[in-house]
Amino acid sequence: MDQSPAEFPSNWGRWGDADQLGTVNLITAQARARGAAQVRTGLSVSLARETPAAPLFGGPMAALQADTTGVQTIMSFTGAAPMAMAELMLVTTHHPEVTHLDALSHMVVDGQVYPGIALAESSGPAGVVHGAADVFAGGIVTRGVLLDLAPGGKLADGHAVTADDLEAAAERAGVVVESGDALVVRAGWDRVPDHGRALPGMTSGAVRWMHEREISIYAGDIGDASPPVKDDVPGALHRLGLLRLGLVLIDGARAEELAAVCAEQGRHTFLFVAAVPRILGTTGLPVNPLAVF
Amino acid sequence: MDQSPAEFPSNWGRWGDADQLGTVNLITAQARARGAAQVRTGLSVSLARETPAAPLFGGPMAALQADTTGVQTIMSFTGAAPMAMAELMLVTTHHPEVTHLDALSHMVVDGQVYPGIALAESSGPAGVVHGAADVFAGGIVTRGVLLDLAPGGKLADGHAVTADDLEAAAERAGVVVESGDALVVRAGWDRVPDHGRALPGMTSGAVRWMHEREISIYAGDIGDASPPVKDDVPGALHRLGLLRLGLVLIDGARAEELAAVCAEQGRHTFLFVAAVPRILGTTGLPVNPLAVF
Amino acid sequence: MDQSPAEFPSNWGRWGDADQLGTVNLITAQARARGAAQVRTGLSVSLARETPAAPLFGGPMAALQADTTGVQTIMSFTGAAPMAMAELMLVTTHHPEVTHLDALSHMVVDGQVYPGIALAESSGPAGVVHGAADVFAGGIVTRGVLLDLAPGGKLADGHAVTADDLEAAAERAGVVVESGDALVVRAGWDRVPDHGRALPGMTSGAVRWMHEREISIYAGDIGDASPPVKDDVPGALHRLGLLRLGLVLIDGARAEELAAVCAEQGRHTFLFVAAVPRILGTTGLPVNPLAVF
Amino acid sequence: MDQSPAEFPSNWGRWGDADQLGTVNLITAQARARGAAQVRTGLSVSLARETPAAPLFGGPMAALQADTTGVQTIMSFTGAAPMAMAELMLVTTHHPEVTHLDALSHMVVDGQVYPGIALAESSGPAGVVHGAADVFAGGIVTRGVLLDLAPGGKLADGHAVTADDLEAAAERAGVVVESGDALVVRAGWDRVPDHGRALPGMTSGAVRWMHEREISIYAGDIGDASPPVKDDVPGALHRLGLLRLGLVLIDGARAEELAAVCAEQGRHTFLFVAAVPRILGTTGLPVNPLAVF
Repeated sequence: MDQSPAEFPSNWGRWGDADQLGTVNLITAQARARGAAQVRTGLSVSLARETPAAPLFGGPMAALQADTTGVQTIMSFTGAAPMAMAELMLVTTHHPEVTHLDALSHMVVDGQVYPGIALAESSGPAGVVHGAADVFAGGIVTRGVLLDLAPGGKLADGHAVTADDLEAAAERAGVVVESGDALVVRAGWDRVPDHGRALPGMTSGAVRWMHEREISIYAGDIGDASPPVKDDVPGALHRLGLLRLGLVLIDGARAEELAAVCAEQGRHTFLFVAAVPRILGTTGLPVNPLAVF
Repeated sequence: MDQSPAEFPSNWGRWGDADQLGTVNLITAQARARGAAQVRTGLSVSLARETPAAPLFGGPMAALQADTTGVQTIMSFTGAAPMAMAELMLVTTHHPEVTHLDALSHMVVDGQVYPGIALAESSGPAGVVHGAADVFAGGIVTRGVLLDLAPGGKLADGHAVTADDLEAAAERAGVVVESGDALVVRAGWDRVPDHGRALPGMTSGAVRWMHEREISIYAGDIGDASPPVKDDVPGALHRLGLLRLGLVLIDGARAEELAAVCAEQGRHTFLFVAAVPRILGTTGLPVNPLAVF
Repeated sequence: MDQSPAEFPSNWGRWGDADQLGTVNLITAQARARGAAQVRTGLSVSLARETPAAPLFGGPMAALQADTTGVQTIMSFTGAAPMAMAELMLVTTHHPEVTHLDALSHMVVDGQVYPGIALAESSGPAGVVHGAADVFAGGIVTRGVLLDLAPGGKLADGHAVTADDLEAAAERAGVVVESGDALVVRAGWDRVPDHGRALPGMTSGAVRWMHEREISIYAGDIGDASPPVKDDVPGALHRLGLLRLGLVLIDGARAEELAAVCAEQGRHTFLFVAAVPRILGTTGLPVNPLAVF
Repeated sequence: MDQSPAEFPSNWGRWGDADQLGTVNLITAQARARGAAQVRTGLSVSLARETPAAPLFGGPMAALQADTTGVQTIMSFTGAAPMAMAELMLVTTHHPEVTHLDALSHMVVDGQVYPGIALAESSGPAGVVHGAADVFAGGIVTRGVLLDLAPGGKLADGHAVTADDLEAAAERAGVVVESGDALVVRAGWDRVPDHGRALPGMTSGAVRWMHEREISIYAGDIGDASPPVKDDVPGALHRLGLLRLGLVLIDGARAEELAAVCAEQGRHTFLFVAAVPRILGTTGLPVNPLAVF
């Protein structure tokens, strides 16, 4: 494992000093066409986890205890009798129970964000001006590859995922990961029912592998381990991947249904389509990536 | 124009008494495959309008006047020095400046929602239990067709769009709209710079045309006229389309870039992909529909 | 106990058809002066319970389980390095864990609010136009009386408080409750540590006693019983007191410290001062009533 | 005017290294009794400005332009037919249009807050642990003095208020400001109708005068000038008063009605009562201070 972040590869400057796209730059016309070639029936599978919306209200209806969730809603009174129903929705974007895309402005080191931009030139009280999530609003469309780390089951508690684990999963899938591919990782985990248990996650070696394979985006049902992997850079996926490599991350994805469909279809590749809402100036946005077959 | 809503066609019961999908039921395997066949290069175009996020803060930084927006954010303090940036996001889902999908629970008539469900069995203080937006979270994937009502320009103020207008646009595009297609309508309008002017919109005749053509979903840069079309059912797209037909609507779409790309590509058809965030139990959700070529 | 709400007294019309103050009308110059006469040292005691503010944030910091609370906050990033700290605060006004004043627009029966105003003329989507909490923003200042229902202890689970209970407490306190007095009730309960247990509360007979004694405002650490009192009007304090009598209520008060100070001072009367924030058009507002000695 | 903040007096350490009350420490039993002696009739006057609550909703009801306000609300749907009305309230505490108390954790200099506490020991993502607004929830009760800087009118645009201005107002009022008094300042300004004009404000000399007179709390319809006073410490009331002196501030107060009542009553002194909602761990809270006569 990489214990010295200083020696870890960096993409700062690789696509210019003002780059906002990071590894999404790797999605060339060729990579995209490789994705397009995956589409046959139009069957789609969601890679988002279900996020319950906690209702906000008082009075005798108010709950006194609750699981927390990244989304809260309040149903709006539109008059009596109501002619329409609507709600206000509060989203704590980076909550682990919301499938969301991390923009490159999300992580900070020594007052800088990818690719060496001063924090003050990236984010302020009024929002993000450089490296916001909406730079991806045109759609991230490329070939997707499912790497299932625990086919039919669940990765062991606290497992530190290595490059070899990823490589082995690719071999099982019969896939060669190519430059610009979207990586979808399944470990069989889900934050909600599992809280209290040690969440598996990526080692810095695994992140290095992603760098070498030139993946464009990472979407997994696991990401960084919690508690952190011992004797390794803590939060390697975010602090090495996102911050140094400009690796675009989708946190809190789900791949249970995808794994089932891949098995049915006899292939682990598909068209990966991710379209964040076109809301400007944020460090992240909820997203529902689709695998289209 | 249809002046008597009672005589307007209805889909209540067409797909069962407990249906939640409405016209999305029209997306058969055949319709989806017709969409899949549109994909060649993987080029994607967003159909979402840009939604600025208004910052929420006080002190000397507080603005005293502002355009309103459907999204407000507050950048979160994560400690000093910050290691990450994040925000809370407040979304007023059905605000006209947010491109969003209307669930079938959104509109109410005489205490009922589509397809004849009592309001109390659809929505309550805790959210939506029948007809929520997340029923579409698996992805709406079908062939999309762009009908441009004002190629290269802008529809006249307050224009009442008829079936003939839609038919003429289809002819100009050289397209036959087929059962299960997604309809993308461009009128060259955008709410924000145009406020104060009479927004064009659909007549009940246009909605009847959509019913006859069996479109599965409507996404337009216009929807219902404001003020309402004279001598017609007010809010025909929502009150006849969504409520009686179960026509799934995407409000506040944009088609400027799509029109340009269609012109370049020499075709007005594409794969339409819409994936709402998988947030449960709401009457609507922000969405960024993509046209994939 | 009163089992027939129809025979329960009503103040609808007593202070005019458009009244917004309800029983606060009973605070005459004489009642107020009686309060003023209580002030000697200026010692003040808060009657508000402590409301923790639940932080709203995501990432590794997000909690996955929590007690709910009526107030949530998010600390605002004001730049790096920060020159000021500030937060956004979300208040679900009528949450039982927030000490708050109920405006007379809060309760509805058969489409009407006190004193017989149609709901549509009181509240709409844009807020309250008749009977809002801010009508009390000039300050509610009168004599306060503490009735301790369980001196030194805690009222039995689910106890149904009767007129006799109140009368007995007044006798123990050596006080005659007079027209325009504010009633502060202590039962030794606090919602938070007690959830799951049967909360004591007022019977309709107790509310009738308040009517006969002409109290101007009720502030208690208990209010309506939960579950409701058997064989009585459910929610008598809110549905008979607030709705029919226009009795202004302060929900979720605390009287532990007040009871201690009253014992020390050898008197159960004081100047009662309640000043809601001057926020316009709401059905309720957080408040911190003071007893001034 | 004081141009060198370094030479400006400081109260850091005066009441201990862990003090959270600042100048409120000056409210001794004697000062409080001086306040109590002001109470005769119980007549109360609010010192809070009216804060409209902007409604949050979408659809055809959504406004596209608005004055901003520090409070937004959304009326809650409690079912059809509704049995109660309630709302969610969003408060951007330090917004100039909300009368609010600034806690001593609000202002930061060189990573420290009053009285020399490291920012990280005062505020974090989860809220304030040292110097929160709720330390004043027991009630601030003392003698209040109205200093009217522009009797019957309005202070000139951008006027820089000096110690002499305050002294002259005290003389006009026939009052000697004493240790522990609450200072209420009227300049005849209100942010809302006046935006775009130069707001008058306190000079560092005026703040020094407050220090010498040992006032316990400042509530004014003006505070710091905007734009800042030329050739003086910018934001003197907040950066010298609150931060160095621990001077507790109430921003956005109103004194129009108070001035009228003082004139009627023939006195400029009264009992000052301020009770913030007992919400824990914030940098500020809405408040409605009362003058009781």
